[in-house]
Amino acid sequence: MTSTRVLTGITTTGTPHLGNYVGAIRPAIAASQDPNVQSYYFLADLHALIKSSDPARMQQSRREIAATWLALGLDTDNAVFYRQSDIPEIPELAWLLSCVCAKGLMNRAHAYKAAVAENEEGGVPDPDRGITMGLYGYPVLMAADILMFNANRVPVGRDQVQHIEMARDMAGRFNHVYRGEYFTLPEAVVDERVQVLNGLDGRKMSKSYDNTIPLFVSEKKLLKLIRKIRTNSLEPGEPKDPDSCTLFQIYSAFATEQESSDMRRRYAEGIGWGEAKNELFEYLNAQLAEPRERYQALLEDPGHIERVLQQGAERAREETTVMLDRLRSAVGLGRFV
Amino acid sequence: MTSTRVLTGITTTGTPHLGNYVGAIRPAIAASQDPNVQSYYFLADLHALIKSSDPARMQQSRREIAATWLALGLDTDNAVFYRQSDIPEIPELAWLLSCVCAKGLMNRAHAYKAAVAENEEGGVPDPDRGITMGLYGYPVLMAADILMFNANRVPVGRDQVQHIEMARDMAGRFNHVYRGEYFTLPEAVVDERVQVLNGLDGRKMSKSYDNTIPLFVSEKKLLKLIRKIRTNSLEPGEPKDPDSCTLFQIYSAFATEQESSDMRRRYAEGIGWGEAKNELFEYLNAQLAEPRERYQALLEDPGHIERVLQQGAERAREETTVMLDRLRSAVGLGRFV
Repeated sequence: MTSTRVLTGITTTGTPHLGNYVGAIRPAIAASQDPNVQSYYFLADLHALIKSSDPARMQQSRREIAATWLALGLDTDNAVFYRQSDIPEIPELAWLLSCVCAKGLMNRAHAYKAAVAENEEGGVPDPDRGITMGLYGYPVLMAADILMFNANRVPVGRDQVQHIEMARDMAGRFNHVYRGEYFTLPEAVVDERVQVLNGLDGRKMSKSYDNTIPLFVSEKKLLKLIRKIRTNSLEPGEPKDPDSCTLFQIYSAFATEQESSDMRRRYAEGIGWGEAKNELFEYLNAQLAEPRERYQALLEDPGHIERVLQQGAERAREETTVMLDRLRSAVGLGRFV
Repeated sequence: MTSTRVLTGITTTGTPHLGNYVGAIRPAIAASQDPNVQSYYFLADLHALIKSSDPARMQQSRREIAATWLALGLDTDNAVFYRQSDIPEIPELAWLLSCVCAKGLMNRAHAYKAAVAENEEGGVPDPDRGITMGLYGYPVLMAADILMFNANRVPVGRDQVQHIEMARDMAGRFNHVYRGEYFTLPEAVVDERVQVLNGLDGRKMSKSYDNTIPLFVSEKKLLKLIRKIRTNSLEPGEPKDPDSCTLFQIYSAFATEQESSDMRRRYAEGIGWGEAKNELFEYLNAQLAEPRERYQALLEDPGHIERVLQQGAERAREETTVMLDRLRSAVGLGRFV
């Protein structure tokens, strides 16, 4: 067992797009292949319930996202890949943690405070309107996700750093109250160099702006979407600025340095937008064709995805059942013999 | 399967005393023998974590309370008797419910409001000081306890009626959001005739007044405690009022009507306090000797208690695993095949 344990939660809402791929999925998959790290990847589907109460969409999203990660080469021999909802010990641990977690800690959570602020700005008399106990308490569940595996490194975005601090707080409090080193204190790992892609309209690619290019659309649809990317009115032959251009930004997120610098030169030489779009399409399509095919094949074989996830859950539960037994004894809920 | 399902949670803190026995345990055990009712009795040990973080005391209390109920004849062939902490589906369901439960509902819970009021009266700047997420969110866990088994009747004290209403609220909301009759709406059953016993000092028998007579103390200790029960200064031969007398109250909670009326006559005839105490001791001891012996034997055989509870958990989980599978599918967390 290596001493570095990295845990990554994957939100199971929506359909992955190029921005998700470049910013989160690709680096995470590369990390899954590092034999010096014990990594855990899980579909955070219990968390997803906070945001979506549409069962069909939930199920579809879970399937698509599992297929996406597998198609892109997540190393499930090295990494442990599982669904959160397949690990009953996680909500059990969440309850144990909630009994040492101050309510005041949750009052300070960004997501909750933002929801309250929105109500207050909207003149809603009840600041808690529309806020569920799931939304309010989810940092406790997230702490359980992390502490269960004694993960010491948790790659997150800036907005999630607070949750890791809360997990540390609960871990420290539990260790103190029950006088033992039950939990490792996790550390947030924020990659400052995260690549952010722009979307069709030039703003950050995001489902909420409705400007995304889904990762595994058909070839035809991919071409169509790339053609819709906003450019300026410069004519072919006029030199163009690659650094303010979404086409170039996406291209270089996929290309080698040499290829990017070649493309940069062609911008200076006045490549036409039509040509630049075709080049981008050809380039992306060549890279995505194979995983896209694997993705389609996986979606047509849900039994295979299910088996992979069940195997992951089995591996995860080899740890979680032992861990929870230990914790049950620690709090006085052990067996009588 | 009968249509009446009664669920009773047993708090696993402290040591049962005569007041617990007369007010709660005895009627519940009688109910467990009713073949027309499917009843569920569980040690609410996850709830107990809210109140106690002393593992040794927690473990001891769980063992003593299980032994108490078994020694007193809980019918574990008819009723399902289990530990809450042995049913992982309960915290899982609690999470599902928390995603449909408005935070505002918890803000109105009596136990939480009382804790806040205490902080405010004490001039504490943070109204949530000392309040854990366990205390705050426990009505959600309690709803999971009840809804999991589709219990339609839940015997509770007045102070718990609100929690049953909250469970009804969550059940109705879940049924509505996920468009199905997943949960039965439970009803609180408040027994207005609950017998309340007084303690050594004449106030209500309660651990918090430190005036209890534990149910299964030794014979010697029982006699000693009964001798400590406060009486007035009337001499033998003077007529006495049975209705204001703790000795008589305890006696009549155990005796037949005929025996009580005989004792009432002896009060009128001027029974001496020493004699009345001896009579009470002899009477109680005769009734308690047998279960006390069974209790001691059970405590010396924790393996037996463990087996009984494991069997109860197996019976319970025959239902809870099926129920949770159904709920997982309902919310979109079902298996892929």
